[in-house]
Amino acid sequence: MTGIEILGYSACAVTALTFLPQVIKTWKEKSAKNVSLMMFIIAFINEVMWIAYGVFRDDMVIIVTNVIMIIMCSVMISLKMKYKNV
Amino acid sequence: MTGIEILGYSACAVTALTFLPQVIKTWKEKSAKNVSLMMFIIAFINEVMWIAYGVFRDDMVIIVTNVIMIIMCSVMISLKMKYKNV
Repeated sequence: MTGIEILGYSACAVTALTFLPQVIKTWKEKSAKNVSLMMFIIAFINEVMWIAYGVFRDDMVIIVTNVIMIIMCSVMISLKMKYKNV
Repeated sequence: MTGIEILGYSACAVTALTFLPQVIKTWKEKSAKNVSLMMFIIAFINEVMWIAYGVFRDDMVIIVTNVIMIIMCSVMISLKMKYKNV
């Protein structure tokens, strides 16, 4: 594995974790008033496109990264709907 | 340009816009209490890694996408620091 590949895989691993702190924060605080729903809707559309791209390119790293992100994104959309005005 | 390339470029364009709704919302509401700072710090580290990856791979689409994201991410970190408890 080359250095560039290691950098790419590491970037994917960090990307997959991006939404986790927001999910944990919203879960704990039971409030998401200042969180943008549109950000997570765009992210959701985005993940769908990346998963399709990963499938066409047969790239498991892209698929796995974006499946993790779409799960977190879906959790965050549900939390935002639940705690929207709290 | 193949269909897969068009999908990849479109995914990058949508990705670049992800943080924009949150920046606009926080800017308007002048409040970011429920927004996770850690999410944007992880995203920032993430963008730095992607920009480095794009430079090594000489991939302008990855570079441009992540430069846009790192700018929005920096704006969001500043807004969060400013409106942290409001």
